[in-house]
Amino acid sequence: MNKNRLEAFSDGVIAIIITIMVLELKVPHNPSFQALWPLWPVFMSYVLSFIYVGIYWNNHHHMMHAVKEVSGGVLWANLHLLFWLSLIPFVTAWMGENHFETAPTIAYGFVLFMAASAYSLLVRRLIAHHGKNTTLADAIGDDRKGKISIVLYLAGIALAWFAAWAGFLVYVGVAVMWLIPDRRIEQKVVEEEREEGEGAPS
Amino acid sequence: MNKNRLEAFSDGVIAIIITIMVLELKVPHNPSFQALWPLWPVFMSYVLSFIYVGIYWNNHHHMMHAVKEVSGGVLWANLHLLFWLSLIPFVTAWMGENHFETAPTIAYGFVLFMAASAYSLLVRRLIAHHGKNTTLADAIGDDRKGKISIVLYLAGIALAWFAAWAGFLVYVGVAVMWLIPDRRIEQKVVEEEREEGEGAPS
Amino acid sequence: MNKNRLEAFSDGVIAIIITIMVLELKVPHNPSFQALWPLWPVFMSYVLSFIYVGIYWNNHHHMMHAVKEVSGGVLWANLHLLFWLSLIPFVTAWMGENHFETAPTIAYGFVLFMAASAYSLLVRRLIAHHGKNTTLADAIGDDRKGKISIVLYLAGIALAWFAAWAGFLVYVGVAVMWLIPDRRIEQKVVEEEREEGEGAPS
Amino acid sequence: MNKNRLEAFSDGVIAIIITIMVLELKVPHNPSFQALWPLWPVFMSYVLSFIYVGIYWNNHHHMMHAVKEVSGGVLWANLHLLFWLSLIPFVTAWMGENHFETAPTIAYGFVLFMAASAYSLLVRRLIAHHGKNTTLADAIGDDRKGKISIVLYLAGIALAWFAAWAGFLVYVGVAVMWLIPDRRIEQKVVEEEREEGEGAPS
Repeated sequence: MNKNRLEAFSDGVIAIIITIMVLELKVPHNPSFQALWPLWPVFMSYVLSFIYVGIYWNNHHHMMHAVKEVSGGVLWANLHLLFWLSLIPFVTAWMGENHFETAPTIAYGFVLFMAASAYSLLVRRLIAHHGKNTTLADAIGDDRKGKISIVLYLAGIALAWFAAWAGFLVYVGVAVMWLIPDRRIEQKVVEEEREEGEGAPS
Repeated sequence: MNKNRLEAFSDGVIAIIITIMVLELKVPHNPSFQALWPLWPVFMSYVLSFIYVGIYWNNHHHMMHAVKEVSGGVLWANLHLLFWLSLIPFVTAWMGENHFETAPTIAYGFVLFMAASAYSLLVRRLIAHHGKNTTLADAIGDDRKGKISIVLYLAGIALAWFAAWAGFLVYVGVAVMWLIPDRRIEQKVVEEEREEGEGAPS
Repeated sequence: MNKNRLEAFSDGVIAIIITIMVLELKVPHNPSFQALWPLWPVFMSYVLSFIYVGIYWNNHHHMMHAVKEVSGGVLWANLHLLFWLSLIPFVTAWMGENHFETAPTIAYGFVLFMAASAYSLLVRRLIAHHGKNTTLADAIGDDRKGKISIVLYLAGIALAWFAAWAGFLVYVGVAVMWLIPDRRIEQKVVEEEREEGEGAPS
Repeated sequence: MNKNRLEAFSDGVIAIIITIMVLELKVPHNPSFQALWPLWPVFMSYVLSFIYVGIYWNNHHHMMHAVKEVSGGVLWANLHLLFWLSLIPFVTAWMGENHFETAPTIAYGFVLFMAASAYSLLVRRLIAHHGKNTTLADAIGDDRKGKISIVLYLAGIALAWFAAWAGFLVYVGVAVMWLIPDRRIEQKVVEEEREEGEGAPS
């Protein structure tokens, strides 16, 4: 089965998720800069979620680049990931509109945790399907960053129970960890491609 | 006529349908977990509809993979299917917000029934157009699952008249039936492709 | 310049337009079939607009299929068309929510008229750019249907001034005219392609 | 790394941005032409933003056409651009609903300024990555229009502080500057391609 439509559909869903979040930035009815002020928590959570969805798109892009074909199980693992990502606009708005209070901050962390778990499941599905394809398995390696993220989300949720801002800071920290480029992996893919002499770029 | 834009357009519409449904999950104004509680029927219907739209995308993906070209009639049969799918967010919200009462549950089943009929029409249109293309005709076979679904939707609608939850359970059952992988068909496509020696993957 | 991204972008915008219209079908708060009744004018105008946007996508698909390349002027003529199409959800909702009264029905016809004019402009731009490309010029021919539509929209607007329902019927009539397959043109494209021996389908 | 998904994702996000802006054109509840009158400032700002987003898509299309491959840094520079573009619907609605008063007009100019800066950053990232690729570097040249725009946005913001309409006129002027076709650059790309004998059009 071909991977192109899976990429196109995922791109579509992720593009919509990243864009409809801005609809939660309710337009103030007052034409003054002070009227913008109450929006800052919503804006902050919008920025964080924009970065998170961007990270997912980015990682999805990288991973699928090394993928050769997809199975029915992979399609569903991918839809499962998209489901949790689709809840990000909801928890983003809830957290932003309530100024990062405890319950919404925990809910935000929970959705991040579920999305990370779903991503990890997708990774395992893909490796199971490709088995001998060393480009994918090697490129992903032991998925250390993914595992650390899942642990950190749990830590963030636990912290948020006592101090919501502390949990929020953990979520920010995980995003920063992903933003730092992982040149080692990019290098790996390039090398493998050269070694295997992969002719037709997808 | 080429099938690529039909796939791209369908992917776009289905991606939007699956994503805008989450907008019906109205953000609670209260930052407590109790505030999430009233959302559970909307969430349940969201999950079911997400799975249904995912199934349609999945099946569409599979079917179009075996398709070689499309006619004007196929374009319209496809738009007809997209029309009924586009009503899913509406009935999902109506059913969820009214806690699965009779009328909305019947309406939900009706839209599922119409979408399944539209899909069946599209299948017949495609087979009519491809005639000699045995890959498509064989892969779809007698479309047993599709026919069973249509009958079950009607049964669900009839049941919902007496007990809405019973109708809802039938809809859940149909979704589960589709989620169980149909390895026989996947196998068939792979085999045919090998036999025909299909060189250029679409 | 390559036509692929123009097609992809147009598909995206048209897919969004056709799908967000359903958001105007406000979910009734009452779980009874009677609660659906007041929605019928909105539903009717949704159906008509869905068909119209479908026709535009269909025609766009056909025309671009015969196109080889696009210029800067074509990109802007295409955006001009998308602009008028983007107003369809607005006039659809206004017409539907006001039960096809005079002003909204005229506004609906005006947007259809502007979209048809924008399409005609795009056609002329494309033919000007391709000049010697007889596949495109011949396929479109004298664009008789397009010209008849523009005249009928004007007639519909004039009629709506006196009786809104009469204008609405004219708009329905134009849609029906486009739904009737124009096999002559499809034939033309196929023939030309065979004659020119066009090897690589776009 | 391949550029196709970056183009597809950007097309998706830009298509959604350009289309959801129309949702701010609130449907009047009154079926008279007078009811449309209060919408004209929202409509005016919609038209301007539609043109601006169209210009960005157009320029993005042109630039990526000359691009051969993308790096991780380019992906993030692109997401940064999309972030600022995603705020255009927000400032468009704020400016339109408040009849071009001072604060919203300044905010609109600020978002345009940030988007232009993000675009300029993306351009520099791409040139840094392609270095020896003279088609891209030459095609963009010294990016004179981009630099002039950034200065004009700052001038517009400064002017808007004293007279909002004057700032607005500057923004309109910049859009007009971009609408005037820059045949020199289009020519350049065509020439380079011929010289380099670029065989496979992307």
